[in-house]
Amino acid sequence: MTGTDAVRRGDVELGDEDDAAGESPPREQQVRAAALRLFRDKGYHATSMRDIAAEVGINKGSLYSYIRSKEDLLIPFFERAMGLLLAEIEAISANESLTATERLKRAIKAHILNVTENLDILTVYLSEWRQLRADSLSTVRQQRERYAALFLAIVEAGVNRGEFRAIDPRISALGMIGMCNYLFRWYRPDGRLRPEQIADELTDMLLHGVLA
Amino acid sequence: MTGTDAVRRGDVELGDEDDAAGESPPREQQVRAAALRLFRDKGYHATSMRDIAAEVGINKGSLYSYIRSKEDLLIPFFERAMGLLLAEIEAISANESLTATERLKRAIKAHILNVTENLDILTVYLSEWRQLRADSLSTVRQQRERYAALFLAIVEAGVNRGEFRAIDPRISALGMIGMCNYLFRWYRPDGRLRPEQIADELTDMLLHGVLA
Repeated sequence: MTGTDAVRRGDVELGDEDDAAGESPPREQQVRAAALRLFRDKGYHATSMRDIAAEVGINKGSLYSYIRSKEDLLIPFFERAMGLLLAEIEAISANESLTATERLKRAIKAHILNVTENLDILTVYLSEWRQLRADSLSTVRQQRERYAALFLAIVEAGVNRGEFRAIDPRISALGMIGMCNYLFRWYRPDGRLRPEQIADELTDMLLHGVLA
Repeated sequence: MTGTDAVRRGDVELGDEDDAAGESPPREQQVRAAALRLFRDKGYHATSMRDIAAEVGINKGSLYSYIRSKEDLLIPFFERAMGLLLAEIEAISANESLTATERLKRAIKAHILNVTENLDILTVYLSEWRQLRADSLSTVRQQRERYAALFLAIVEAGVNRGEFRAIDPRISALGMIGMCNYLFRWYRPDGRLRPEQIADELTDMLLHGVLA
């Protein structure tokens, strides 16, 4: 999950100039990093364009040469977090040496770790998606649908190969994805257990829930 | 779940004058019913006090003799839905003739049916809670904590009596509650399966997940 960590500690949050060279100007990286900090601390609605400008130390007018709106700042964070999770389930699904059981185990763990590592982004996404323009969410929606389809395929393969009981693959997959997503409401970084321990505990419960 | 049905089909939505007699004036019931319809159809943020007044056929000024703000309309819906679920888990917990397994089964089913029956309220709650005043949510928060404590006690009893495996009761309980809550994002009233079938499917998976 090193790649996911980079979202929080690397180029987005702290502004990695190497990464930005030749692509986005460092100033835009600073703007995006400042916006994420403010969305996380104050909430998306309570953060104004003026707040973001002040955080970077530029005036509000200059801000518009880097980004058009708060939504333009928010959406790339979702797409990045969802993209990392999608890449993981794609790799898991493409690995033909794995049983369905092992695939499901890895998929659940990857999902839970992705949620705990992108907690702020997920919290904003799941709280704000109804207020965001539908067209700006189209990539995230496609990513989400592709993710759900790959997850479902793993469960279906498990049932078809007799590794899992004769469960309803679709309802089971949606239930499992929901359990993982809902961590955004109760997981605390300073809590009793580390993300890996929580992932192991829930993966164990869900696997026992479906295994033949 | 007849009691829960009443939230959608009875006094709140349609305005039951019998229920209101001597307590709230029928006009207030009409205002609350209109607000729920609008929150459901247009979303909470997009619904104005003017929209609610127009829906009831009164002017915006008169509206303020019945309610002070949109929040005053929204919060009672949450408290009502959460109160019904809490009453169910309290009855399940108080029934000493039941095994922990049977209690957990009934609690999960009650939770899932409550979510499917209060879909609009839950959707608004889980999307808006960050924007609502903390003090106005204090009753809902207390209800939620009491609910989680009773749910956890059922799982703990199951582990202690040897009915369940040596799972982490807290993480398992939070995971199960999360799976049930997250139905608000994927359950569709016009979908392939009825709420009872979805509840049976997920209950079966979760029970297999914890049983010794």
